[in-house]
Amino acid sequence: MAAPLSKACEAIERSIRARVPPMLTDLYQFTMAYAYWNSGRHNEPAVFELFFRENPFGGGFSLFSGVHDCLLFLRNFRFTEEDVEYLRSVLPPTTNPAFFQFLRELDCSGVTLRAVPEATVVFARVPLMEVDGPLAVVQLLETSLLCLVNYASLVCSNAARFRLAAGPDRKLLELGLRRAQGPDGGLTASRYTHIGGFDMTSNVQAGFLFGIPVAGTMAHSYVTSFSSLEEVWPQTLLPADGEKDPIDLISLTKGLLGRLCELLGAEPAKIHEGELAAFLSYAIAYPGNFLPVIDSYSVSCSGLLNFCAVAMALIELGHQPRGVRLDSGDLCRQSVEVRRVFKHCAKQFSVPVFESLIIVGTNNISEQSMMELSKKENEINVVGVGTHLVTCTRQPSLGCVYKLVEVRGSPRMKFSEDPEKSTVPGKKAVYRLLDSEGHPLMDLLCLSEEPPPLAGQTLRCYPLGQEAHLAVTPTQVTCLRQEVWTIVPPQCSNITT
Amino acid sequence: MAAPLSKACEAIERSIRARVPPMLTDLYQFTMAYAYWNSGRHNEPAVFELFFRENPFGGGFSLFSGVHDCLLFLRNFRFTEEDVEYLRSVLPPTTNPAFFQFLRELDCSGVTLRAVPEATVVFARVPLMEVDGPLAVVQLLETSLLCLVNYASLVCSNAARFRLAAGPDRKLLELGLRRAQGPDGGLTASRYTHIGGFDMTSNVQAGFLFGIPVAGTMAHSYVTSFSSLEEVWPQTLLPADGEKDPIDLISLTKGLLGRLCELLGAEPAKIHEGELAAFLSYAIAYPGNFLPVIDSYSVSCSGLLNFCAVAMALIELGHQPRGVRLDSGDLCRQSVEVRRVFKHCAKQFSVPVFESLIIVGTNNISEQSMMELSKKENEINVVGVGTHLVTCTRQPSLGCVYKLVEVRGSPRMKFSEDPEKSTVPGKKAVYRLLDSEGHPLMDLLCLSEEPPPLAGQTLRCYPLGQEAHLAVTPTQVTCLRQEVWTIVPPQCSNITT
Repeated sequence: MAAPLSKACEAIERSIRARVPPMLTDLYQFTMAYAYWNSGRHNEPAVFELFFRENPFGGGFSLFSGVHDCLLFLRNFRFTEEDVEYLRSVLPPTTNPAFFQFLRELDCSGVTLRAVPEATVVFARVPLMEVDGPLAVVQLLETSLLCLVNYASLVCSNAARFRLAAGPDRKLLELGLRRAQGPDGGLTASRYTHIGGFDMTSNVQAGFLFGIPVAGTMAHSYVTSFSSLEEVWPQTLLPADGEKDPIDLISLTKGLLGRLCELLGAEPAKIHEGELAAFLSYAIAYPGNFLPVIDSYSVSCSGLLNFCAVAMALIELGHQPRGVRLDSGDLCRQSVEVRRVFKHCAKQFSVPVFESLIIVGTNNISEQSMMELSKKENEINVVGVGTHLVTCTRQPSLGCVYKLVEVRGSPRMKFSEDPEKSTVPGKKAVYRLLDSEGHPLMDLLCLSEEPPPLAGQTLRCYPLGQEAHLAVTPTQVTCLRQEVWTIVPPQCSNITT
Repeated sequence: MAAPLSKACEAIERSIRARVPPMLTDLYQFTMAYAYWNSGRHNEPAVFELFFRENPFGGGFSLFSGVHDCLLFLRNFRFTEEDVEYLRSVLPPTTNPAFFQFLRELDCSGVTLRAVPEATVVFARVPLMEVDGPLAVVQLLETSLLCLVNYASLVCSNAARFRLAAGPDRKLLELGLRRAQGPDGGLTASRYTHIGGFDMTSNVQAGFLFGIPVAGTMAHSYVTSFSSLEEVWPQTLLPADGEKDPIDLISLTKGLLGRLCELLGAEPAKIHEGELAAFLSYAIAYPGNFLPVIDSYSVSCSGLLNFCAVAMALIELGHQPRGVRLDSGDLCRQSVEVRRVFKHCAKQFSVPVFESLIIVGTNNISEQSMMELSKKENEINVVGVGTHLVTCTRQPSLGCVYKLVEVRGSPRMKFSEDPEKSTVPGKKAVYRLLDSEGHPLMDLLCLSEEPPPLAGQTLRCYPLGQEAHLAVTPTQVTCLRQEVWTIVPPQCSNITT
């Protein structure tokens, strides 16, 4: 359950103000804003485009994300008196004081934002956002908008790649908070990896704010905090069927453990009593949610046996154990062995519940190891992914840029000592052309003043950076971007429209 | 100038509450806390250690950082009623309601934190923090503490490596906000790269909150927003000496530009008029802060000439231009050419100020390219670093872990299917041993109950993971960690001391 919607929305809105005040930007946005203001150009209508030049992770696509945060940022774009005083202290003393009054009154009315919808599959060099408005204001928005979409899109795309590597059936659990690039990086990762294809997160705040299903049971520290069965308290558990007499779970489990050791030829002396105590204690607290981590000492000599004994005891009392977590070593090999023991127990002890126990695997999973895991024999039902997912180790940044393409209706272009950094001038319309099966053929950039392409009509297209042209006949034409923010105040309407 | 200290402190404290509520943690911390509480073990005194297993970036050291944020987190560790209600909704319905009352009353009194001081040079496998307190509470702190120190330490260490690669004299400017892993990642990067050796940041909020010097002048968009000299307004500038008659800067500059083209054999037709207009406009707004980016069209055919002409015009009026920024192409080669032209102008036009102009270089600098730059001939005075610095592309996460080492005075150890994940049991003291020149010899781990090593006394030490021992005679012995947080409430004093 997420927090009640209105409360969660309020918390998200509060958090954007704290996370992205309009001061969280580069100083040159203010020095440029002053220079525009000083020459009377600050209200000239201007158009910036936001895009990235290469798909991340050497791949063929990205999921563009962060649009909702951008809208909250625009809505809250206001300088406080303290902000303005600080800016006055860092700009040269010759700066005209009237500029600071201009800043005090500034907001995002007059700005129009067109963006592809949240989590759309997108491609390199296609303008994903268009920010249209008074030159000084749309310039001031640059760094914050880039910061809000770059990581959100990157981590969402990374999650989609992990999902593709895992296949559609395996459950994926995000658990990267502790290794993320700061607390907000962790929260953003939980939010956008869910959108990108993960089923659950370990991050409680992400569950609270965004309604993402949360999961998790115990760490090794819980297991190692126990050293003997004397620490188990209470030692009894009520049967699930409403019987009033509590059963001594320790004795019951000990008996089952003896039988298990016999069945599996295991050495009772190698079984760790502290681990058994931890499992019993946890099972008593959570008889319906028993899923311990079983590699604190040794999976095959201790953890697996302790799990099976406690799980069978729970089943005898009518409760339903859930499964185990493996957190080290060769997850595939161990999962096969664990599954074999589960099936053996199911048969030998007549506990059919053991046929449906789940195995969770968590051990520094990367996209590469997820692909290998998918190819190898294994019995892992849920994979937990942390570091490589949230920090995007293969490519920890997406290079979205924000480029001026039009001022006062005239196109603008940047050349560069690096030819690939040159920009495509002019305010554009972006169409996604689809074939007869509804699959995308291509994204078409036109000048916004050009007539839109028509379904069924053959177009001559020029792929970016290539000489040759293509002929394409789309079955369907859609507009890739939508207007998501616009407030045109009456006094500015002649400027921004 | 930073914000007035108290205001900035308040803002930092507010921001930690927004950034790291106690709900920003893994669900299993709560499920374990309940299991401890349910078995009456939640107040047992426990000790966790925080450390990393390998130095980042394949290097030999790290700068441990984030301690101050951890203290603010401990101070603000309190669950709200909404938090508790959400937790009630995700824990099983069988959870004892009294546990939620326990959460409502929880804070970090009873917890003692020992940590190495902020930004200390530290090494792998040395316990950098020790968290001592009631078992359930110190368990609940795990994820948040890890999240706060992992990235701070990583990015601080990365900055130190860039500083080592750059040498001591070159100025370093951090400008990674737009590519950071979220807004807070950007702010944390600005803060800790300054501690790690960067001189300045482009991040205004970092200047506001932390008093870091901020820098920046203009982006390409400023340059490309101009297309003709008609857009320059005002066109005049007052001389610096207090003369009352404004001078027509455009005419003055045009004359100088003609002479420059002659001197350097440049083609006037290749000079971009919009770029000249942008430079003039900026110089009029900031006559004492003129430092344009000169590669929007072509450095040698347009940008450099336009800069020199405007700079000489400023000098004629008694103002002092600052320099140029290069943002694409071969920065070293271009900087040498730019410097050559500056020196030539200084002599030919008798403008000695041109001898001391600065050259700023920014173009996707990595630690590797910084090292190469340091080896090659170049004239770059300030290097701006973004993506590779703030996202730590070589290794985007530091693997700090938080391990239980003692409960109720008894040592605790985790074994593992991966031997390197096993832990060293027991509550420890950590000493740094120094030689006669004050250089560190080694960090020594002892059990906290052992007597401290003495200066001048030979010790037998066992390097972690090795069989052989060493004999070491320190000239000086220091305690590596300090107690930085302790509130022992009267009713708990028997538990936590």
